[in-house]
Amino acid sequence: MSKPRAYSVKAYSTASAPSPLAAAAIPRREPTDRDVQIEILFCGVCHSDLHFARNEWHFTQYPAVPGHEIVGRVTKVGPKVTKFKPGDIAGVGCMVDADPSCPHCRKNLEQFSPTMVGTYGGMDKHLGLPTYGGYSEGIVVDEHFVLRVPENLNLAAVAPLLCAGITTYSPMRHWKVGPGKKVGIVGLGGLGHMGVKFARAFGAHVVVFTTSESKKADALRLGAHEVVVSRNAGEMAKHAGTFDFILDCVSADHDINAYLGMLAVDGNITLVGAPEKPLPVAAFSLIMGRKSLSGSLIGGIAETQEMLDFCGKHNITSDIEMIRMNQINEAYERMLKSDVKYRFVIDMASLKNS
Amino acid sequence: MSKPRAYSVKAYSTASAPSPLAAAAIPRREPTDRDVQIEILFCGVCHSDLHFARNEWHFTQYPAVPGHEIVGRVTKVGPKVTKFKPGDIAGVGCMVDADPSCPHCRKNLEQFSPTMVGTYGGMDKHLGLPTYGGYSEGIVVDEHFVLRVPENLNLAAVAPLLCAGITTYSPMRHWKVGPGKKVGIVGLGGLGHMGVKFARAFGAHVVVFTTSESKKADALRLGAHEVVVSRNAGEMAKHAGTFDFILDCVSADHDINAYLGMLAVDGNITLVGAPEKPLPVAAFSLIMGRKSLSGSLIGGIAETQEMLDFCGKHNITSDIEMIRMNQINEAYERMLKSDVKYRFVIDMASLKNS
Repeated sequence: MSKPRAYSVKAYSTASAPSPLAAAAIPRREPTDRDVQIEILFCGVCHSDLHFARNEWHFTQYPAVPGHEIVGRVTKVGPKVTKFKPGDIAGVGCMVDADPSCPHCRKNLEQFSPTMVGTYGGMDKHLGLPTYGGYSEGIVVDEHFVLRVPENLNLAAVAPLLCAGITTYSPMRHWKVGPGKKVGIVGLGGLGHMGVKFARAFGAHVVVFTTSESKKADALRLGAHEVVVSRNAGEMAKHAGTFDFILDCVSADHDINAYLGMLAVDGNITLVGAPEKPLPVAAFSLIMGRKSLSGSLIGGIAETQEMLDFCGKHNITSDIEMIRMNQINEAYERMLKSDVKYRFVIDMASLKNS
Repeated sequence: MSKPRAYSVKAYSTASAPSPLAAAAIPRREPTDRDVQIEILFCGVCHSDLHFARNEWHFTQYPAVPGHEIVGRVTKVGPKVTKFKPGDIAGVGCMVDADPSCPHCRKNLEQFSPTMVGTYGGMDKHLGLPTYGGYSEGIVVDEHFVLRVPENLNLAAVAPLLCAGITTYSPMRHWKVGPGKKVGIVGLGGLGHMGVKFARAFGAHVVVFTTSESKKADALRLGAHEVVVSRNAGEMAKHAGTFDFILDCVSADHDINAYLGMLAVDGNITLVGAPEKPLPVAAFSLIMGRKSLSGSLIGGIAETQEMLDFCGKHNITSDIEMIRMNQINEAYERMLKSDVKYRFVIDMASLKNS
């Protein structure tokens, strides 16, 4: 494999944990044989972007460019690319590379491959440089990691599907959410609001748990059949022991045993939020009723495509608030206060003048 | 339903949490239409017996008679009993009654029915009196809760199958332990040693985790292919990320995240021991690899019969140390020090002179 040449694109980058994001130039590789070059139209803003920009996971190398909910237009393809041609609309999520021969990739679970390269914070094996995310004019990605985007959807509102969408879709498929199942969604934010939409589209009975009475109307609008205010012991007791599946989207500390108590026999709670401190799990909460607590991480590429196709068919997108690139630092502050319904998406056309 | 008459049998009972167990008379009901009267030959000693005798679960009513690993000979049957006749060898485990029309019972999961009556510490609906366990001359049980015992097995060593056996058999069946799977057993005691035997009989590759180097030889003798001393970081690291299933039989505090790290993608740990304090579970331990942590509680009656039949076919019993009834208080002290290989069984013939 000969080393491709690099070219420069404009991006929004941060130079250290306390620095704000600001305009800078970053390198991209010239498309290799199987690469797709994409002009980025929209990029969603995930809480992980903020963790990464501020080095809260302790592996950030600077300069750092976040962004892994990418929708754009194909501008160029390598000679061996078969799935895309210039002009196509395409998506890129959290992953941009992995060894296809690894046992996880052969099972379409690229997200668990030790060879997986993140869209940002990974290593571009062609250039031998860090990978830079979607807060940029363009990106170059191996076609295996590029998704087809249903053309009937609002493209800006598709962007968050590439992370928030697949993160909530995958565990519900894995745990067989469908008609006749009672499903709980804990936490109504970027992840949770997608969870509600998918659970409803899968035909389940959907109950949103929220700490805030003020979210009730919106939960119902998004598709919930019922809303339980989790601080209300009486409302909680009414639902005890009745859920087949609960998707826990909360990253703050919360009482997991209270939600295990909501499960029916053989019920499962899957965590997609990751609270900083360990969750104290009482063994009896699991033993009584053969319950399980599990985790889930985005989804494989094939499943991400399945999710996008499902969204196209069922007309599902994220509820978004569009921002300009130079509003990103303010958007991070608002995200920390959960002041967004339900996902910021950057209009990347604004990068030119940001 | 007319109230049956009670008759008196000799038992070993305790009058308060700090009291030792001692001989006393307890009531049993005359067999009703579907009842089986059993002369108890052997009764296993479960750690739950001790918790119950000492009111460590805070629901014990005194006098209390423990014992739920019962093997005996049928002495009398009610007129509508079809499965048993006098002279048959029969077993009774942790449950003696439940409403067969409840949704859990209809799924053969009597252990999760709110109507389930425990062999001790429950309520005999016929007499309106507490249920008393197997540390006694005889017991009277609805035939649905009486198990057939394979006649080729050592009957004393069958007794622990009724609790320790089904407790370990059921989750391994549920999580599909079999050929090609790598299975870990954490803790080599009454439960763990049965787990090793079953996992081996199911055709899995069996690894015992133990804190004590001294248990290595015995683990191998019981059927383990490998033994890992969990204090040895190097040995642990060698197995990281490779287990399909781990049966956690430990009731003491232990680092569950270390064992979650042993699981492969989609791996499961099932808890059958119940540590007193909640286990701190790091969300990322579950998220990275879509892992799950679950619990399991004995097994339903149909599955308990399946387990006994499996044991008959594969010649599986518990490793036991036989004691006389009047050695029970001393046996409890030894059990607290894990000084038993691997289950005490009371020779109930000794009750007469105890």
